[in-house]
Amino acid sequence: MAISMYQASVPRFANTLSNLSRILDKAQAHVEARKLDPAALTAFRLYPDMFPFTRQIQIACDAAKGACARLAGVENPSYSDAEQTLVELKARIAKTVDFVGSFKPDQIDGSEEKDITLKLGGKDVTFKGMQYLCGHALPTFYFHVTTAYNILRHNGVEIGKRDYIGTP
Amino acid sequence: MAISMYQASVPRFANTLSNLSRILDKAQAHVEARKLDPAALTAFRLYPDMFPFTRQIQIACDAAKGACARLAGVENPSYSDAEQTLVELKARIAKTVDFVGSFKPDQIDGSEEKDITLKLGGKDVTFKGMQYLCGHALPTFYFHVTTAYNILRHNGVEIGKRDYIGTP
Repeated sequence: MAISMYQASVPRFANTLSNLSRILDKAQAHVEARKLDPAALTAFRLYPDMFPFTRQIQIACDAAKGACARLAGVENPSYSDAEQTLVELKARIAKTVDFVGSFKPDQIDGSEEKDITLKLGGKDVTFKGMQYLCGHALPTFYFHVTTAYNILRHNGVEIGKRDYIGTP
Repeated sequence: MAISMYQASVPRFANTLSNLSRILDKAQAHVEARKLDPAALTAFRLYPDMFPFTRQIQIACDAAKGACARLAGVENPSYSDAEQTLVELKARIAKTVDFVGSFKPDQIDGSEEKDITLKLGGKDVTFKGMQYLCGHALPTFYFHVTTAYNILRHNGVEIGKRDYIGTP
């Protein structure tokens, strides 16, 4: 036995996105308790040329949905990126969890050697399925979730690594 | 076929740690070009009760070496956590890459169902090998590498996601 492509993707994305949604609940409570302008968090960037919190969440969702869609060979749905508020971002996460959770193991298993072509820096780059999932999609996903987490931590929202890991 | 426990661990840790080492080279060049106190980066925290940069690197290394050692059932070497400088942190990363790279596939493959017990929040928590690797060790590893990255980005070091992903 080994790890199936499904096991390495769908439950990991779904689990971490669900944890992220609960982290956004804590951010919402933080904003309300202090009567903050919600944009103080959602528009926050750790550096001027980094993406703001909203975009970090959108890209994390896109990494998850894109990976599942590409590995399964189904249409990758386009989301409008119009979210501005924590409530809207939570809805995007929920939509992504639903999409990711709609895949059955037999749609994704067996995609280890499948060619996956991405546009990176304006060029087409082709990966094998396993390399794409383990070396690109998962690290990218965790990167944006963690950066969103760091933006909240940097602004004093009381969250910890346990919120990010959840119950694996 | 599927993803072996080895494929999901050793090459992923080694690749990202090597990318992290090159990110530290860019941090070193940044410090030297601006004649900064090197501790301005290594002691930096994104929030007062978060770990500083040095500790983020140490924990990322520990997540990688601990995962390989536990899955293979070999002694998990203890590192002294005495690093203060970027040069010393690069040496720790190199030591970790060497350790992780010393494992052969047959030492780690087949550990999917192996019981792995960790001390978390003062309590013993037992995972199955696959759940531990995919749901705990890898997300923890990427979390600390990304937080180290974010500390550098927040301080103006010119790095990008491509430095983190490298060549998967």
